[in-house]
Amino acid sequence: MVALEKVSLFIIGQKLIQPNQKVVLGFSGGPDSVFLAHVLIHLQQNIPFSLNLAHLDHGWRATSSNDAQFCLQFAKKNNFHASLGLAHDFASAFKFNGSKEEFARNIRKAFFKKVMLDTQSDLLALAHHADDQLETFFIRIMRGTTISGLKSMLPKEGHIIRPLLNVSKKEILHFLDEHNIPYCIDETNKSELFLRNRIRNKAIPACQEADERFTQNSLRTINHLAEVETYLAKNTQEIFNNISLLFDNQLTIDIQKLMSIDLFMQRRLVIYWLCTEKVPFNPSEKLIHEILRFLQNKKAMAHTVHNWTIHKKNLFAWINHLN
Amino acid sequence: MVALEKVSLFIIGQKLIQPNQKVVLGFSGGPDSVFLAHVLIHLQQNIPFSLNLAHLDHGWRATSSNDAQFCLQFAKKNNFHASLGLAHDFASAFKFNGSKEEFARNIRKAFFKKVMLDTQSDLLALAHHADDQLETFFIRIMRGTTISGLKSMLPKEGHIIRPLLNVSKKEILHFLDEHNIPYCIDETNKSELFLRNRIRNKAIPACQEADERFTQNSLRTINHLAEVETYLAKNTQEIFNNISLLFDNQLTIDIQKLMSIDLFMQRRLVIYWLCTEKVPFNPSEKLIHEILRFLQNKKAMAHTVHNWTIHKKNLFAWINHLN
Repeated sequence: MVALEKVSLFIIGQKLIQPNQKVVLGFSGGPDSVFLAHVLIHLQQNIPFSLNLAHLDHGWRATSSNDAQFCLQFAKKNNFHASLGLAHDFASAFKFNGSKEEFARNIRKAFFKKVMLDTQSDLLALAHHADDQLETFFIRIMRGTTISGLKSMLPKEGHIIRPLLNVSKKEILHFLDEHNIPYCIDETNKSELFLRNRIRNKAIPACQEADERFTQNSLRTINHLAEVETYLAKNTQEIFNNISLLFDNQLTIDIQKLMSIDLFMQRRLVIYWLCTEKVPFNPSEKLIHEILRFLQNKKAMAHTVHNWTIHKKNLFAWINHLN
Repeated sequence: MVALEKVSLFIIGQKLIQPNQKVVLGFSGGPDSVFLAHVLIHLQQNIPFSLNLAHLDHGWRATSSNDAQFCLQFAKKNNFHASLGLAHDFASAFKFNGSKEEFARNIRKAFFKKVMLDTQSDLLALAHHADDQLETFFIRIMRGTTISGLKSMLPKEGHIIRPLLNVSKKEILHFLDEHNIPYCIDETNKSELFLRNRIRNKAIPACQEADERFTQNSLRTINHLAEVETYLAKNTQEIFNNISLLFDNQLTIDIQKLMSIDLFMQRRLVIYWLCTEKVPFNPSEKLIHEILRFLQNKKAMAHTVHNWTIHKKNLFAWINHLN
């Protein structure tokens, strides 16, 4: 019971679940979510909270309906409710942009949101573990990302909790095997078509071979970088408050103040501004430089991107949405 | 001549060498430094500067004196001076701490310093290239480092210039092979005993196989992180100026101001303080927390580490060296 105890103590210590909350568990039927289900059932002996499984049938594989069956049986046996969904029913809301993984992620998010609403739940528990954290970090490095992109998953973000971030896949499988607990196997996890699988199956084992402390130490590096990003996010917000003001109920930027700041922070401030104004944008370096160039240009008075416009007057700038 | 032109333009664009400067080139005789020598000889057609080779015979391998011979011949043929040194003569100044790589690095530094002084030179050119940059980054990640540790090598740091940081090993070898230029081969570069070699020969190729844009994108990530560290270093210095004052010619910290700052920045400020005071220390998390705890402790008035002491009085703290 060591692994169950370890995670239970983590949940209690980090106050991830409060008594009498309603928790939805994202349940694929794979080893990670089966393990987390066992942890949560174990924890219910100490903290009273309700548990509801949410399983999405992606319909990618011929065997995926078996997984749905497994989920229903698991819920029935353990005496709680399971919400089932078909990816097909949620897909129409999203545009396929070439990444099957991102498409699937959007669909899952929409499904979980619906289950949370339907069941009036407080928390969504996801079974991301230490290996997932490490894989994501390496995928981000390989994509040439900024520090914001390297930000790792946290045990609690809004209504999402991730109680397994300190547990390795190895510990999970060891526990399940030791207790003869059945789980589904997702064959797509082995497909070399997905970057994540190539990183999991080739790149990370090669790094582990190069240095046996690789996993443990890289997770320390990730935590250090997460601290940096947390500091920078707070720092950005404080500086933004200093260079912006509400004028006629319109969030307005003092361009001279913005331009007196380091270029590195200027770029973060522009992104923060666009996010605060709920502007739909793809935060490319090109777009950010375009905006900074416009703000410095003494002649240009308006700059339109898609359906929003930045206006300028007397060294102040603001954003309007075009409807 | 494409590769030569590319590096020459980089040196001119980044103003790495000014006319009439005296440049020492760290020359192992291996492909990287032979390539850089050719670049610098080529560049002398456009910028007048003097060039001096510095070769250190590590004496690790039976063939290492051949490399010294190669270096002397290379210098003679190209009509410039070569300074030769024996690692043995510099080793006594350093304690072997278990890392053969670090020991060799210290010896090299001392040797280059002597050559720079002897020849009254302005710059030390080192042949670190893009692959070295990437390997160092991965070694640091694997050691669980902070953002300061992930800081990459820069084209110019003090009197050191690194003109090859944008050139890959592949480009270097291609140029040398294409022009039938001979170089020495260091067999220790293949030894699996060194972490760097295991990363170079196993981990990085596996990452490249997982994603063909790995090298290019990781270098972008490294550049982004270097920007973050540059920003944080400046930010740390500014905040330090705000929380410190000179009192009786003694750099003094306002403890209350320090304690009002984010813990992340507090730790950086303590490290900055120790560096400014030229305190010899190993910047472990343990030591930094020990110092912060002492500063918060209302009873303790002095805290001694090795041969230096932090003193406290009326919410101000300062450091004394014990001689």
